[in-house]
Amino acid sequence: MRSFQGRDILSLKDFEREEFFRVFQVADQMEPIARDRRSCDLLKNKILVTAFYQPSTRTRLAHESAMLRLGGSVTGFSDAKMTRAGDFYQESIKDTVKMLEYYGDAIVMRHFQQGAPHEAAKWASVPVINAGDGWGEHPTQVLTDLYTVNKERGRIDGLKFLCIGDMRMRTMHSIGYALTQFDCEAIFISPKEMSPTEEWKAELKAKNLRFREAEHVEQVIHEADVIYMEPVVQADYTKSRQESGGEKGTTPANYKVTRELLAAKGKSDAIVLHSLPRMDELPADVDATKHSRYWQEAFNGVVMRMALLNLVLGKSE
Amino acid sequence: MRSFQGRDILSLKDFEREEFFRVFQVADQMEPIARDRRSCDLLKNKILVTAFYQPSTRTRLAHESAMLRLGGSVTGFSDAKMTRAGDFYQESIKDTVKMLEYYGDAIVMRHFQQGAPHEAAKWASVPVINAGDGWGEHPTQVLTDLYTVNKERGRIDGLKFLCIGDMRMRTMHSIGYALTQFDCEAIFISPKEMSPTEEWKAELKAKNLRFREAEHVEQVIHEADVIYMEPVVQADYTKSRQESGGEKGTTPANYKVTRELLAAKGKSDAIVLHSLPRMDELPADVDATKHSRYWQEAFNGVVMRMALLNLVLGKSE
Amino acid sequence: MRSFQGRDILSLKDFEREEFFRVFQVADQMEPIARDRRSCDLLKNKILVTAFYQPSTRTRLAHESAMLRLGGSVTGFSDAKMTRAGDFYQESIKDTVKMLEYYGDAIVMRHFQQGAPHEAAKWASVPVINAGDGWGEHPTQVLTDLYTVNKERGRIDGLKFLCIGDMRMRTMHSIGYALTQFDCEAIFISPKEMSPTEEWKAELKAKNLRFREAEHVEQVIHEADVIYMEPVVQADYTKSRQESGGEKGTTPANYKVTRELLAAKGKSDAIVLHSLPRMDELPADVDATKHSRYWQEAFNGVVMRMALLNLVLGKSE
Repeated sequence: MRSFQGRDILSLKDFEREEFFRVFQVADQMEPIARDRRSCDLLKNKILVTAFYQPSTRTRLAHESAMLRLGGSVTGFSDAKMTRAGDFYQESIKDTVKMLEYYGDAIVMRHFQQGAPHEAAKWASVPVINAGDGWGEHPTQVLTDLYTVNKERGRIDGLKFLCIGDMRMRTMHSIGYALTQFDCEAIFISPKEMSPTEEWKAELKAKNLRFREAEHVEQVIHEADVIYMEPVVQADYTKSRQESGGEKGTTPANYKVTRELLAAKGKSDAIVLHSLPRMDELPADVDATKHSRYWQEAFNGVVMRMALLNLVLGKSE
Repeated sequence: MRSFQGRDILSLKDFEREEFFRVFQVADQMEPIARDRRSCDLLKNKILVTAFYQPSTRTRLAHESAMLRLGGSVTGFSDAKMTRAGDFYQESIKDTVKMLEYYGDAIVMRHFQQGAPHEAAKWASVPVINAGDGWGEHPTQVLTDLYTVNKERGRIDGLKFLCIGDMRMRTMHSIGYALTQFDCEAIFISPKEMSPTEEWKAELKAKNLRFREAEHVEQVIHEADVIYMEPVVQADYTKSRQESGGEKGTTPANYKVTRELLAAKGKSDAIVLHSLPRMDELPADVDATKHSRYWQEAFNGVVMRMALLNLVLGKSE
Repeated sequence: MRSFQGRDILSLKDFEREEFFRVFQVADQMEPIARDRRSCDLLKNKILVTAFYQPSTRTRLAHESAMLRLGGSVTGFSDAKMTRAGDFYQESIKDTVKMLEYYGDAIVMRHFQQGAPHEAAKWASVPVINAGDGWGEHPTQVLTDLYTVNKERGRIDGLKFLCIGDMRMRTMHSIGYALTQFDCEAIFISPKEMSPTEEWKAELKAKNLRFREAEHVEQVIHEADVIYMEPVVQADYTKSRQESGGEKGTTPANYKVTRELLAAKGKSDAIVLHSLPRMDELPADVDATKHSRYWQEAFNGVVMRMALLNLVLGKSE
């Protein structure tokens, strides 16, 4: 297994099976610290640089909180408007990174442009963590999600994943790549214009993932062990609500998971994950069912980032 | 007296007399640390989450500085635009809080919507501090203010408060509720369209606060021990300057406290409080008079937040 | 030499020769900490307040990172929109500072208005560091730059500086003032509408700096030991790209330093500095030449701020 020390976390395409389990193992070590709301000194003298060109709450704060719980500190920017790198100059990623690398010991980057963190990693002398790159990937989110599945279901192998939402989204890309490393099946459901790309499907096939597409959640929910959701309304990362003309609360039944549907057709031990925020594809009354695991997922978001920061900053090996 | 440990600070409506004095007592313990610009380790492993849906300087930074002086750390957002919780998704307070609670040990929230922090407190497993909720309340500011009165005048009982400004504002609401716990009188002055609401006056009457309304500061300033001010120009929290059409510097004399007026008619030991920022209702030449106490008030803003954070995070009991 | 303890860093106009070297000396002590990405406890209990009324990446993060490496912490705002001080109220600098001084032990301020940090320093009981004031000065950047020259060339005396760019910009003002304290010559090149002001030139003459103006970099580059660059496209701090109508990549050859030009006419040991971000006045292929020193300059940005914070907070004397 490759060492994680000093390594970039850019994509799950190159993640190997045993690497997932190594990450989960370190996360298990971190979990009690987060659960008991303690801190420690593992990364005492380390600084995390947050380079968020797009607003984020969960991803940014989970990384920041993880760093603080590990005794480290944080600097950076949380909006392209807060940085001259995002203004008139439209500075190259290289120029930005050749500055940011001096401000800390690792860089976590969210960018509206696919591949931006990969470009950053080319130039940075410190590890770069991809916190979501346009329509690209969102590896730390999906590591969180699979860690949650593994904890809540005791395993990943042998489970059938039902992925519902805009299949062009970065979390979907990452979970597809991740599942190729496990003995899993996947079903994808999305509106036609949000279908999986041919390129991505070819990659999954090449890696022998068994998957198929379906049209309506009702037809397949009975098969699902893990229901993995994203909104289908307004998923364009580059547009605001008004620009996209989208309206809250107009998700077609095909892409909705309701309490009633789960009760009627869901497996008794099926779990529902959603990285949130949600629109109406997942009504709030699902929260109280035995199926919901998205609050655990939110909690594990901190645990997983503690594990990743520890691994890349070389403290857990 | 109820314990403060793990408690939310949402409103002064439910604050009892002895609780005010308990808070002041802890503030007195904190004051030397802030005065000497020292730090300590009281909240060493604690993280404060700032959830500011509206810009703020004083309230946000006073909380952050308090947390840092206590050895803790801070994460969060300072503008709704910096969080996806405030964007297209218009995420529910519940969903936001079920995430934020994992990122730290207490949440301090400013929101444009009245009652938002109360809703947050319903769902959060950690204490929620209301840093101003729309037209609702601003309890930590008013605790700061009364602490300042108590320090500067040696007591609160027996003092007459002259409250000038938009009486529908959150600080006014909170100070009214607070004064019901003391042996005080109050006089309210505001433009007609900014008059106290009937509901609020009924609450104050039910709690036996002696108060009356007046029209012009000149008529009543001679009675005032404490002059408590807010702007009457542009107090709408939801509008920017251009939207409101307001102009700086157009406060009618009825609502202004000038150096000349204080000299001519003010009590010799009257003190002036203003949570700032100010428009022209309080000209800068009042700063150098014996009456001004708003810089002390600003300083006490840090002291009070140190006390509150200590109390709710359970370190002072 | 005046002590740096408690001192404001507002301008290089009043900086004396020996003070430059004192600052460089402390920077040399800080350098290994930054280079080895270590932290220390020199400013353990200190808080830096960042008051940025304009977005900044390099200057803000370099200060924040410096403070963190020294064991201190940071609070503040990074955009005028994040503070009510910048909103409708247009609060006076005095009112803002009489609050900010309670939140930390030093204030670093960037402001769109020339002289704002000087006004702040009048009222603050803690040191104020000017992080760029409109068309005024940018002392910490230029201290970084001269520290870089001194390290990379072994001296400052005897060197000829070629300054290219908008000569009305704050970095240009500061470097002019700084060079009066050394045995240097300067050549200034800028478009006519961005020429040095008569007032500034008179100040430099009064302090006996030898300087002249030129029209095209090709005519004088063979003389230059240090090439000090700023963009000439869109330098107006108050306008966005669209407002200014500027286009990226339209810098006239007069103000460009290319790899070819350096190879053909540059001194073999000439070094190029640029505080970045850049437009096309400095093409990316210069980065790999022996002349480029702007990455070192970026790194030294942290080192210099560590030195300055140490000096004004009284830990290095």
